[in-house]
Amino acid sequence: MTEQQLTHIDEHGDVRMVDVSQKADTERVAVAEGFIAMNPATLALIVEGKAAKGDVLACARVAGVMAAKQTSSLIPMCHPLNITKAKVECAPVEAGEREDGRAGIHVTTTCGVTGKTGIEMEALTAASVACLTVYDMCKAVDRGMEIMDVRLLKKDGGKTGLWEREA
Amino acid sequence: MTEQQLTHIDEHGDVRMVDVSQKADTERVAVAEGFIAMNPATLALIVEGKAAKGDVLACARVAGVMAAKQTSSLIPMCHPLNITKAKVECAPVEAGEREDGRAGIHVTTTCGVTGKTGIEMEALTAASVACLTVYDMCKAVDRGMEIMDVRLLKKDGGKTGLWEREA
Amino acid sequence: MTEQQLTHIDEHGDVRMVDVSQKADTERVAVAEGFIAMNPATLALIVEGKAAKGDVLACARVAGVMAAKQTSSLIPMCHPLNITKAKVECAPVEAGEREDGRAGIHVTTTCGVTGKTGIEMEALTAASVACLTVYDMCKAVDRGMEIMDVRLLKKDGGKTGLWEREA
Amino acid sequence: MTEQQLTHIDEHGDVRMVDVSQKADTERVAVAEGFIAMNPATLALIVEGKAAKGDVLACARVAGVMAAKQTSSLIPMCHPLNITKAKVECAPVEAGEREDGRAGIHVTTTCGVTGKTGIEMEALTAASVACLTVYDMCKAVDRGMEIMDVRLLKKDGGKTGLWEREA
Amino acid sequence: MTEQQLTHIDEHGDVRMVDVSQKADTERVAVAEGFIAMNPATLALIVEGKAAKGDVLACARVAGVMAAKQTSSLIPMCHPLNITKAKVECAPVEAGEREDGRAGIHVTTTCGVTGKTGIEMEALTAASVACLTVYDMCKAVDRGMEIMDVRLLKKDGGKTGLWEREA
Amino acid sequence: MTEQQLTHIDEHGDVRMVDVSQKADTERVAVAEGFIAMNPATLALIVEGKAAKGDVLACARVAGVMAAKQTSSLIPMCHPLNITKAKVECAPVEAGEREDGRAGIHVTTTCGVTGKTGIEMEALTAASVACLTVYDMCKAVDRGMEIMDVRLLKKDGGKTGLWEREA
Repeated sequence: MTEQQLTHIDEHGDVRMVDVSQKADTERVAVAEGFIAMNPATLALIVEGKAAKGDVLACARVAGVMAAKQTSSLIPMCHPLNITKAKVECAPVEAGEREDGRAGIHVTTTCGVTGKTGIEMEALTAASVACLTVYDMCKAVDRGMEIMDVRLLKKDGGKTGLWEREA
Repeated sequence: MTEQQLTHIDEHGDVRMVDVSQKADTERVAVAEGFIAMNPATLALIVEGKAAKGDVLACARVAGVMAAKQTSSLIPMCHPLNITKAKVECAPVEAGEREDGRAGIHVTTTCGVTGKTGIEMEALTAASVACLTVYDMCKAVDRGMEIMDVRLLKKDGGKTGLWEREA
Repeated sequence: MTEQQLTHIDEHGDVRMVDVSQKADTERVAVAEGFIAMNPATLALIVEGKAAKGDVLACARVAGVMAAKQTSSLIPMCHPLNITKAKVECAPVEAGEREDGRAGIHVTTTCGVTGKTGIEMEALTAASVACLTVYDMCKAVDRGMEIMDVRLLKKDGGKTGLWEREA
Repeated sequence: MTEQQLTHIDEHGDVRMVDVSQKADTERVAVAEGFIAMNPATLALIVEGKAAKGDVLACARVAGVMAAKQTSSLIPMCHPLNITKAKVECAPVEAGEREDGRAGIHVTTTCGVTGKTGIEMEALTAASVACLTVYDMCKAVDRGMEIMDVRLLKKDGGKTGLWEREA
Repeated sequence: MTEQQLTHIDEHGDVRMVDVSQKADTERVAVAEGFIAMNPATLALIVEGKAAKGDVLACARVAGVMAAKQTSSLIPMCHPLNITKAKVECAPVEAGEREDGRAGIHVTTTCGVTGKTGIEMEALTAASVACLTVYDMCKAVDRGMEIMDVRLLKKDGGKTGLWEREA
Repeated sequence: MTEQQLTHIDEHGDVRMVDVSQKADTERVAVAEGFIAMNPATLALIVEGKAAKGDVLACARVAGVMAAKQTSSLIPMCHPLNITKAKVECAPVEAGEREDGRAGIHVTTTCGVTGKTGIEMEALTAASVACLTVYDMCKAVDRGMEIMDVRLLKKDGGKTGLWEREA
């Protein structure tokens, strides 16, 4: 087990940004997800609003894309990247559709870049901030909402190549 | 159900920042939590590193506090607040300690402010970003980590007063 | 004429942030507008998209609100303010409706704060960035769009009280 | 008309950052302009101050260059770019010089980059923020100033090559 | 000696933002300074440029004021404050004028706020960034420049009242 | 002497971001340092805290790395760069160890990038902000601390190649 190393910790035990100077620029992509569970009544309010021109999910999508671009400002040891692709999808999930039965919004994010290091953190940050935005806009009616399942689904490119979450 | 309104949506269905101009400045506090589940071997690497002077959890704590201050830049309809208190605690959880048995890091955040609106989003954003920072620093050894249980535990102050999550 | 002074220039001719330390906190509001002129065909594409769930104007509204919160980071001598109200409205204007006959999007912004200094810059910045966002999202089909009429409509509060643009 | 598509809207009608992953890095340049109209007396104050070491236009130039670098943080679907060139020029225009006769400051911006997507938004954002900075520094003497003529003059590079505004 | 405590470290040895929730809002001011030493020939280039309309020191002054507003984003445990006053002065110092004989630019900064905590960090950050800006603009001709004497000269307000550096 | 030019000043005397569009991407590195002098008793408090899990120097290291990534937002004419390497080391210096005898923290920073322009400003900004962070966390016990010796030690890469500070 101890052959594995935390790459952000140097030989003295100090944190550092990992040196990627020698890595080649390759095309990379990452897909992540997140879920915010809520009362079915809260979901109904979101879905109703969605019929109108301004809606919670449009706001969450914009927030997720913008957060992807702020990732390296938020995560201390994360490399800045000029992302070339960012997409945030938000789908309502009715009570009973998921295995745990909970109603809520399911967020899927896709980020891409041509760079020396992967874009997983951008996809995960976008998913987190999209969920937080839903929380913010609905908290007056439902303080108990919970964010869960924030995780990587897939990444490709770079030396380690393709990784996919097992079902 | 429909008597409840999403306060961020106006009478035309458009998003807006809620107008809090008429609200009084009161002292407010919010406590939130989050959990990042990981392989027990990953947790061991973090705990080992923690014995040294630079460690993953110190970095996550700093990231969480700094993220609390960026909340209104990330969450579109969130009011800017001059927070007066921010604390991020990160505790290792060994496999078997939680009900679901998963190993990982448990994050608890506390934010305070004297202001016209609550500080829940700051506490939740700090918890999310602390978890994302742990992900970033350990992803080279464990891509499958999952962020969950990001939720409000307690908030106090303002017109609605005390709210606590039911156990 | 020379009795009037530029308040951001000190007695030595240097720029400075105006000292508002001695000013009282009062409730303030500002209303601004902007217009982005475009080809009627471009406007039609926006209006069509608007019927769908994700649309250019929703994105512009969110961008405008978020920009209002970044105003003091963008405008060098502008004081930071914790805005308590921000609203950005975007209305399509068909060819022939305006005096100059041009089609486009008319943006109206309203910002509020309780503070020592006015919130005009936040309203004007929100209007500018909402228009720039429309430009960005439509530039692939219409590079010739023009932003105009970015101006204050009304401000109230503070020592100078109410000001309204003459019709 | 409907053959043209808004590239920021996907097949479901959702906003997205356009995917430029497959585009080649080419050298790109964009030139934009803006104008802030004001009372001739306000212009005189600026020009007088300009003779001294600290002046409104120096501040506006710096603000414009810095804003160019913040463009992708402000405009939701705009790609981050490492700009390699940014210049903001501010020229006083006396009453009667323009066709509409208005006095004010004319801003011209030039931005360059080697990248996968164009730099028009950076040039336009720099022009807007330079004008807003002039507004901020002169608003105490002239609230009625208006920003207009914010538009692209020229762009070059990339697949679509040279575009110039018709006179 | 050990009766003194580092207030940013809690009883468990963890960093935290100090809780200032219970502190009163009082008017506060801080004055700081910094010096960037350089070759006399470099100073001559700055002073010559200063005669023209755009100059290094105007840019450094603007950068210093803007940095004061970013202080809490840069310094992890620093409280956000809505500063009400910021001034950055830059004075050329000829070789032989200082005790150590070095030529360079002397920066003095003054920041003010009405708040629960002091504004020393804003004044010190403004001084540092003004010096760094001079370095950036002159580094092509003088890489050996050194920033020194970045220190607080005076602070007033709050529970601890007036503090002044001994001559 | 006057053959040398300040590259940030154009032929009209205006500031500008230097045009690096035509420069090749090369691998570049910069090493900088800084020192914050303090009372020996303050240093003792830092070193004691360092034994515990959360400490001043861990916070300063994180702040320095994050500041390196914000450099082009802080320094007006500085080009944005996607840094590929950032490391901040903080070493306690006991009274008597330095030539001037002062106790304090010595900061060394290393930044790397593959880009069209050098990374000196990132290394210097990281050193400055690490020192400012130490000041912030210790100021309650020692307001008289001084930041000095902020300077470049070495840079390599680019057209001008290797530069090293003479001992």
